[in-house]
Amino acid sequence: MHSEILKDEAVARLIELGKVSDAGGFLERTFQSPASVRAGNLIRSWMEDAGLHTWVDQMGNVHGRTEGMNPNERALLIGSHLDTVIDAGMFDGALGIITALSALKVLKTNGMLGELKRPIEVIAFSDEEGVRFQSTFLGSAAIAGVLPVSTLHVHDKSGVTVQETLRKNSIEITEENLLQLKYDPESVWGYIEVHIEQGPVLETLGLPLGIVKGIAGQTRLRVTVKGSQGHAGTVPMAMRKDPMAAAAELILLLESLCKQPENYLSYDDHCTPSSVQSLAGSLVCTVGEISTWPSASNVTFTVDIRAMDDLGREAVIYELSSRMYRICDKRSVQCLIERKHDANGVACDNELSSQLRFAAYSAHDRISDEKPGDVPILMSGAGHDAMAMSHLTKVAMLFVRCRGGVSHSPEEHVSDDDVWAAGFAVLTFLGTLV
Amino acid sequence: MHSEILKDEAVARLIELGKVSDAGGFLERTFQSPASVRAGNLIRSWMEDAGLHTWVDQMGNVHGRTEGMNPNERALLIGSHLDTVIDAGMFDGALGIITALSALKVLKTNGMLGELKRPIEVIAFSDEEGVRFQSTFLGSAAIAGVLPVSTLHVHDKSGVTVQETLRKNSIEITEENLLQLKYDPESVWGYIEVHIEQGPVLETLGLPLGIVKGIAGQTRLRVTVKGSQGHAGTVPMAMRKDPMAAAAELILLLESLCKQPENYLSYDDHCTPSSVQSLAGSLVCTVGEISTWPSASNVTFTVDIRAMDDLGREAVIYELSSRMYRICDKRSVQCLIERKHDANGVACDNELSSQLRFAAYSAHDRISDEKPGDVPILMSGAGHDAMAMSHLTKVAMLFVRCRGGVSHSPEEHVSDDDVWAAGFAVLTFLGTLV
Repeated sequence: MHSEILKDEAVARLIELGKVSDAGGFLERTFQSPASVRAGNLIRSWMEDAGLHTWVDQMGNVHGRTEGMNPNERALLIGSHLDTVIDAGMFDGALGIITALSALKVLKTNGMLGELKRPIEVIAFSDEEGVRFQSTFLGSAAIAGVLPVSTLHVHDKSGVTVQETLRKNSIEITEENLLQLKYDPESVWGYIEVHIEQGPVLETLGLPLGIVKGIAGQTRLRVTVKGSQGHAGTVPMAMRKDPMAAAAELILLLESLCKQPENYLSYDDHCTPSSVQSLAGSLVCTVGEISTWPSASNVTFTVDIRAMDDLGREAVIYELSSRMYRICDKRSVQCLIERKHDANGVACDNELSSQLRFAAYSAHDRISDEKPGDVPILMSGAGHDAMAMSHLTKVAMLFVRCRGGVSHSPEEHVSDDDVWAAGFAVLTFLGTLV
Repeated sequence: MHSEILKDEAVARLIELGKVSDAGGFLERTFQSPASVRAGNLIRSWMEDAGLHTWVDQMGNVHGRTEGMNPNERALLIGSHLDTVIDAGMFDGALGIITALSALKVLKTNGMLGELKRPIEVIAFSDEEGVRFQSTFLGSAAIAGVLPVSTLHVHDKSGVTVQETLRKNSIEITEENLLQLKYDPESVWGYIEVHIEQGPVLETLGLPLGIVKGIAGQTRLRVTVKGSQGHAGTVPMAMRKDPMAAAAELILLLESLCKQPENYLSYDDHCTPSSVQSLAGSLVCTVGEISTWPSASNVTFTVDIRAMDDLGREAVIYELSSRMYRICDKRSVQCLIERKHDANGVACDNELSSQLRFAAYSAHDRISDEKPGDVPILMSGAGHDAMAMSHLTKVAMLFVRCRGGVSHSPEEHVSDDDVWAAGFAVLTFLGTLV
């Protein structure tokens, strides 16, 4: 069961990588920071330890590849990201890189790397969280060929651009180089990614692994409610145009609509019955920030809406906006709903997902102490590098249970056995390629 | 109609006083600041111009008094405050001082000061807004004898105490002095105060003046809702313990309960039918600040509840709290409701209010261009020096229409004619004492 590599060493590596930080006392690795470069070097040494040949590309992605029996066959790519949020946990991103390398190390140890029917390439992407440049997927989007060249000139808070940041680390990139980073789709067979679930479903089901059906599309709105609150004590209730009470009503509408979209959406051009049905299972809506700044007469909040079905998400936004405006009219307050960000959903490949699910089932069967169960199929509400990679090739994802569903926090945790199960699933998957 | 004194000069003085500020570009006068001292000197010169003898007491209150025919008779006190909030308007506080002095100047001009049947004393209180020491009514509470002596040792943000602040302005005050500032109730006949309404009722009614029935009692709560929001996209709607949606439901409950308390309060020990009835007319509830800081798993907001009837206010708080806790239980979030501040309501004196109402009616009748109307009886939701003075003597208040109900803002505005009407009402009231 290779527990010494898939569990003990993998966990030790997660801990070691989790200490590579730009901050003292907490974990922070943003795009091309000193700690990110050190983390890349560490990962590269582990790639070499797994028998891979390695290189760093011009967006700072770290690659390790083995050619197998047929260097000209289409390659399987396995990846995740090496950057983190600020005050991060040590599993988000890292788990996907380390489980892949552990599985390949087992194959190497068994002398089977050369028997792989197709090349395998592990990629540690340089940026997924987008903390520094507010622009996610710098690494994977470049490889997928969907990163606008103008991104090189985006600057961080201190005014330094992506291009200058890379140059400081002795990486010269021009707009032309960036275009050349795109992989030829003909050279790639598929992409798989292991990632923590970042949600509570697997824990609730009591299962270590799940397969991702797709990655939700996302829309971010900013809602501003303008009223005239006046002195707290002196405006009678009946004469108020209270932006706070209006905002509260809008937030409850959002919750209610997202919990039961079928009660709100009509079956017209915007929304077919099937999309309403698919919505009901995947729709999640969150109010992220609320403030009364700059004055008590204004309340502003952000809304994050995610769903697998893009048309359904559009229908929700349409219905939500029109109902919000009606509430504001009724309350004689002014509402402004701004659309700040949109990303369409991504469906994972059925065949690749089936193979990955079979591998997860084996891992579950052989490692988990818990009662054997099916491998559940989940939606990913969070974005992942697989989202960018889907523009290049078919993708599949394996989710790993994390304690309490918590992520983006030092509290983030995956049990040693679940790390092992994830590594074993990747190993089993690779075994089908031998 | 004395428009040259009651209107032209009064308005000019409001503008002049409104320029006495510690800040450049906006109005700010906090307790015993350099601008407050300059404002006190200016007011003192206007007191002398009205034929009053003047002094400054050990809490920085500026007094101007005329003895009339009977120096041993109980005195009528007329007051308001000379301090302001930060970025204030020029009418809040100042209007009450200046209209009183204008009316007395008319009496002096007519040679009638000596014919007053009782002494009249105008007091410009040194602190009502409480901006600097977070402790309202430093001036009037000292005179009413309800200021704790420990207040002398309260310090501002820079660590300077009330006592040290006064000392810097060459005013020495000890705990014993402070106790001696209290007026002998036997020496006082009553207290009246002219103030802007700080609400929209008079403007809505199209009337310049109103009489205050009482000043609402107030309770301030801080509500903290703790949930576990998790990653925005990854926790299914049905598994959420969303503190924001819970807070929204609490805020809507507050609004609904305060708009129609009769639908919520039962007629038990806490609440008699009459207090529910009185509540329905005076209850106002406001959410002042809301934030998700320090983390998105916590939402905190403040609630300000005001009502004339103290028992009714208690009943509202009891009912609100128990319903809030039930909502939080239902949503599996934790709620903490903290009681941060309480002040009981104050009823104005019926007889004094009737006399003041008659005077306001005369002013309305003779000055206002608008159709004559009754003088409405209002509740004061905001606190005033009259609240402190009610501990010493009977009180009455005259409210003056302000544009849009706006106060505590440079947008605060009272029309020249309404300044005139207020001054004329005070003059008419004083006429009954001749």
